Amino acid sequence: MSTTAHDVLRFEPDSDGDPAALAYTFGGFAPLVSVRPGTVISTWTMDCFAGRVRSTADLVSEVCDPRFLNPQTGPFFVEGAQPGDTLAVHFRRIVPRGGRGVSTTVPLFGSLTATNLTAMLHDPLPERTWVYEIDQAAGVVRYDALDSVFQVDLPLDPMHGTVGVAPALGEVRSALTPGQWGGNMDTPEMRAGTTCYLGVNVEGALFSLGDGHARQGEGETCGVAVECAMDTELVVDVIKGLPPTAWPRLEDDEFIMTAGSARPLEDAFRIAHTELVGWVRELTRLSAMDAYQLVSQTALTPIANVVDTNYTVVAKMAKSYLRGATAMGGTHERLRAANAAR
Amino acid sequence: MSTTAHDVLRFEPDSDGDPAALAYTFGGFAPLVSVRPGTVISTWTMDCFAGRVRSTADLVSEVCDPRFLNPQTGPFFVEGAQPGDTLAVHFRRIVPRGGRGVSTTVPLFGSLTATNLTAMLHDPLPERTWVYEIDQAAGVVRYDALDSVFQVDLPLDPMHGTVGVAPALGEVRSALTPGQWGGNMDTPEMRAGTTCYLGVNVEGALFSLGDGHARQGEGETCGVAVECAMDTELVVDVIKGLPPTAWPRLEDDEFIMTAGSARPLEDAFRIAHTELVGWVRELTRLSAMDAYQLVSQTALTPIANVVDTNYTVVAKMAKSYLRGATAMGGTHERLRAANAAR
Amino acid sequence: MSTTAHDVLRFEPDSDGDPAALAYTFGGFAPLVSVRPGTVISTWTMDCFAGRVRSTADLVSEVCDPRFLNPQTGPFFVEGAQPGDTLAVHFRRIVPRGGRGVSTTVPLFGSLTATNLTAMLHDPLPERTWVYEIDQAAGVVRYDALDSVFQVDLPLDPMHGTVGVAPALGEVRSALTPGQWGGNMDTPEMRAGTTCYLGVNVEGALFSLGDGHARQGEGETCGVAVECAMDTELVVDVIKGLPPTAWPRLEDDEFIMTAGSARPLEDAFRIAHTELVGWVRELTRLSAMDAYQLVSQTALTPIANVVDTNYTVVAKMAKSYLRGATAMGGTHERLRAANAAR
Amino acid sequence: MSTTAHDVLRFEPDSDGDPAALAYTFGGFAPLVSVRPGTVISTWTMDCFAGRVRSTADLVSEVCDPRFLNPQTGPFFVEGAQPGDTLAVHFRRIVPRGGRGVSTTVPLFGSLTATNLTAMLHDPLPERTWVYEIDQAAGVVRYDALDSVFQVDLPLDPMHGTVGVAPALGEVRSALTPGQWGGNMDTPEMRAGTTCYLGVNVEGALFSLGDGHARQGEGETCGVAVECAMDTELVVDVIKGLPPTAWPRLEDDEFIMTAGSARPLEDAFRIAHTELVGWVRELTRLSAMDAYQLVSQTALTPIANVVDTNYTVVAKMAKSYLRGATAMGGTHERLRAANAAR
Repeated sequence: MSTTAHDVLRFEPDSDGDPAALAYTFGGFAPLVSVRPGTVISTWTMDCFAGRVRSTADLVSEVCDPRFLNPQTGPFFVEGAQPGDTLAVHFRRIVPRGGRGVSTTVPLFGSLTATNLTAMLHDPLPERTWVYEIDQAAGVVRYDALDSVFQVDLPLDPMHGTVGVAPALGEVRSALTPGQWGGNMDTPEMRAGTTCYLGVNVEGALFSLGDGHARQGEGETCGVAVECAMDTELVVDVIKGLPPTAWPRLEDDEFIMTAGSARPLEDAFRIAHTELVGWVRELTRLSAMDAYQLVSQTALTPIANVVDTNYTVVAKMAKSYLRGATAMGGTHERLRAANAAR
Repeated sequence: MSTTAHDVLRFEPDSDGDPAALAYTFGGFAPLVSVRPGTVISTWTMDCFAGRVRSTADLVSEVCDPRFLNPQTGPFFVEGAQPGDTLAVHFRRIVPRGGRGVSTTVPLFGSLTATNLTAMLHDPLPERTWVYEIDQAAGVVRYDALDSVFQVDLPLDPMHGTVGVAPALGEVRSALTPGQWGGNMDTPEMRAGTTCYLGVNVEGALFSLGDGHARQGEGETCGVAVECAMDTELVVDVIKGLPPTAWPRLEDDEFIMTAGSARPLEDAFRIAHTELVGWVRELTRLSAMDAYQLVSQTALTPIANVVDTNYTVVAKMAKSYLRGATAMGGTHERLRAANAAR
Repeated sequence: MSTTAHDVLRFEPDSDGDPAALAYTFGGFAPLVSVRPGTVISTWTMDCFAGRVRSTADLVSEVCDPRFLNPQTGPFFVEGAQPGDTLAVHFRRIVPRGGRGVSTTVPLFGSLTATNLTAMLHDPLPERTWVYEIDQAAGVVRYDALDSVFQVDLPLDPMHGTVGVAPALGEVRSALTPGQWGGNMDTPEMRAGTTCYLGVNVEGALFSLGDGHARQGEGETCGVAVECAMDTELVVDVIKGLPPTAWPRLEDDEFIMTAGSARPLEDAFRIAHTELVGWVRELTRLSAMDAYQLVSQTALTPIANVVDTNYTVVAKMAKSYLRGATAMGGTHERLRAANAAR
Repeated sequence: MSTTAHDVLRFEPDSDGDPAALAYTFGGFAPLVSVRPGTVISTWTMDCFAGRVRSTADLVSEVCDPRFLNPQTGPFFVEGAQPGDTLAVHFRRIVPRGGRGVSTTVPLFGSLTATNLTAMLHDPLPERTWVYEIDQAAGVVRYDALDSVFQVDLPLDPMHGTVGVAPALGEVRSALTPGQWGGNMDTPEMRAGTTCYLGVNVEGALFSLGDGHARQGEGETCGVAVECAMDTELVVDVIKGLPPTAWPRLEDDEFIMTAGSARPLEDAFRIAHTELVGWVRELTRLSAMDAYQLVSQTALTPIANVVDTNYTVVAKMAKSYLRGATAMGGTHERLRAANAAR
């Protein structure tokens, strides 16, 4: 199955009943559909629990199968994408599918608990589930405490935790892990209006996405955001002739951004900032030391996650400091304009 | 020497000629002046290089003495401050003293280089110095590249990198290090309008400050911000009867904030977020798991520094999510109002 | 193809000419041969460079293809091995195939250099290659300096850097990475006389091995040991009815050992020690706190590697402190005795 | 008070009743006695709990004052020691003072627990105390489980956890912290027969020692070794004319060793190995890359502690690989011979 450029592809993930029919890794799955660069994909994603957590009585360890966490919609085969190219994914629209989101604690997962990697002798923290009402008209999600009467509305800010392609060197990586292929970066910057750039490692790129969040804090402290299924519209494109994109890049109307994923957290920071220095050099012809200096005084550095198997840090710089330089051959502006013109 | 409450103390650091006359540690120096709680202190601070770096030809390794880096104004003895109390420092005004700031690279210092702790076999990166014009009327500092023609104006956003008290357990810590006593946290949040809370470890607290930055990026990537001397006005207060403040807290009109300083960077994150969970519990009576959840969906987490001997992460939550709770007995509002009324 | 128990299988990896015919991942390759538990496998492994580095003039970045590093012999399908079982691999004999080993530096790889994860602005360290003569009769390898006249003989101590099975959750991991499936642990403890225990994740376990080292230091500081092809004899067995083996365990006549692989290095330490505490509890019925105490006073903790994508720490305790307890159902003793009786 | 060279100084720490009379920091205390280089000091040290933990019913949090943990014997003023010199401390004899040692867990301290720096939401692990009988004739300490009947004898291997001088830059550091000044390194290598080299930062060096361990595991997993008071005999010397010793070095008859203290643990590893590469270069005139290679194949890397405010890793190389080079101007051999001749 394929589409023509600028067409809209409606893609329905086949999720009825059998979570085993979906993808849980980057790499390792055959593409479900082939799209031309420029195609608008209209699709939806399941939440990270495959819809199994529905009430405060549903605990992840009881209702979920560890083999079927974080189901991905895809992979999509992008025609013409070759190793060394860069895939661009512009998010036009990310809207919660229903009126509720859920969050949980998960035993031995999160940033303020012992985990299977930060191994300790503690018993797990208590396992709990919170349900959030999502009010799209008001643009809020409602936090409701479990152990006392306390409600507060938080701004709705929908995003995808997981966006990625097939990894390099024949690896197949769990959808719970972020890395050079993108994956489970869990950055709030992956919202509508953002373009994500990923280096292509295999023919067709094999792009997937999932893990919608109605909102999350920076760091995703307990390991779980306000999770919900999402209706999502995106445009894919392929960029050729640029140096390979080693780590994910993001761009919106105001910022260029880089995402580094590693442990310890300072290595994620180092990757994001080294990549940002390099990108600024590409765009300004500044020397390495001059770009290092400019980044040092201007970078914003929102932490994405400190909970996944790799931690993710985003570094961002306002485009206004770049004196008119155009990033990635103007891809973001082009996809953005197509969006606006539609 | 002492002052009456609500009086204004003008304090001139004695810096003429002899850098050895200033303080370079938290703890280890006798107080220079005694102030009553409520006193407005009007003073100034030298830049972190004690004014020795003045042009692009001045390299830190050549013009600075490692014993005399990051001079502090103080210590101030705050009357009535006892171990277990909390010192509040509200910044009313932080204004660059002159028309120029400087930044540099320093051999084996910074986040994208081998250091004496992240020890490697690399030669140091090149040592360079940048000079920024500060235009207070326009509210900008001007970046000027060294190796090509490239200028860009960046927003002026003055702050103090270093604010602290004498440490616990008889320790004396270099003014280059952040920790539970505050110190060299290097967070852009320490700007005018912010109140900083620090646990008191010794009688009189022995508060000092320094390391003014005309602005810096989040992480202070190369290790050096836009450094300048500062004219600063602050109010000190002592809070009694609250649980001891284990780690620095900050508050402005919109946010409560915690600052964790440690290595690796995830431990700084863990400290800041554990402290924020605890503070939210104090203010809302939420259970631990409920507060963990609320922090997870709402925290902003600007990285302060990834270059100092401890790294610093700030976690912040909008006060609007706290349903009207008042932090630290209303100290910020009180000092803020005094400020406005003046 | 299959064998009867206690038979010896001679297996020749098909390496002539085409490195693409070998395995470079754990998981992701179909098994080449099926063996019954108890089979003695006599085989050989290529060195980590697939034999491409032969003289001091051969630099890795020039003669090697990054897709074909660390070729593995296997995978072997072990009959009857089911998810949840434990695979035991006892090494009877590990002997260098030839008279020479090589070591190198590799750009942006090693513990005392910036890397692609500990990303910095430094240029790579110089790329060099050392050739070691291996004298099996004398039991030494000869270090020969490149830049001055300096030779010294070091004890021959052959081992396999890489031993592993297919990972869990459908992942396929590069042979350069260690983790719960074993893989590139690079511990000197993996020598003849040692039994390695690995949790089985897929039917048949899909066991492979490679990366022979004539010797290495603890930590594999520069990232490359004295690399050589190996003639290796091992016995495989399957253990049923024990709790799943979450992380690799090793055992020799004197010690039980656990291997944790993670970043930062303290997490690798925490895993290895938490696993050792758990194993001691299994063998002694000590309480958690009592086992923690006994481990604290008796553990040896040789660092395996601080260079791979995960770092590896081994924790070991003398069996003499276990008051006669028998580990893993006596598997090591049984395989060892079979060895001696042969 | 002073002594003549080669004289024996008997020094009694004044510990009767008042723990506040002892030293709990490196730096910050006036010297108690002045000694000439070459003096044999015969003294004793209290255990890290100042003798307050005496039975399994004594819990640290109940019987100890946090201000008075890890009391040090000293400081000693070493005549002629100037900043830039190296202090040598040769341990002739380290013998437990009594027939018992104790170990404990301490709330939020240790490697397999949340701590005040690795901050989490867990409750502390249970607090317990173990008492070990020390049998000097048999050369063993007896582990006795608390929650079941299980005894086992472990080899007696006495050492000092804490050896240090006044830090640089006017800092005063808790006796619980290791660093460039030595301090609480907690390495089992600090046993009788070892010489420790420390860079001198202040006139007289201001050397102290304490924290005797009847034995400990590598890593000191639970944070507390088999703690006991020690009778200790040592010789101090001052080495002039060598490059400053940036980090502690150790030497025994067989090995040269370096100790790096930092977090994360890989930074402690990097320091120790970078220092070892540098030391090997000094002794062999090998190029940096040649020394890196030799260290990579020969280093042993026992982890000292993963529990203190900085973690400590020791790197060691057999002197037999150095082709007859003599370290530190032959200081170890000279002090060792004096010992033997006595």
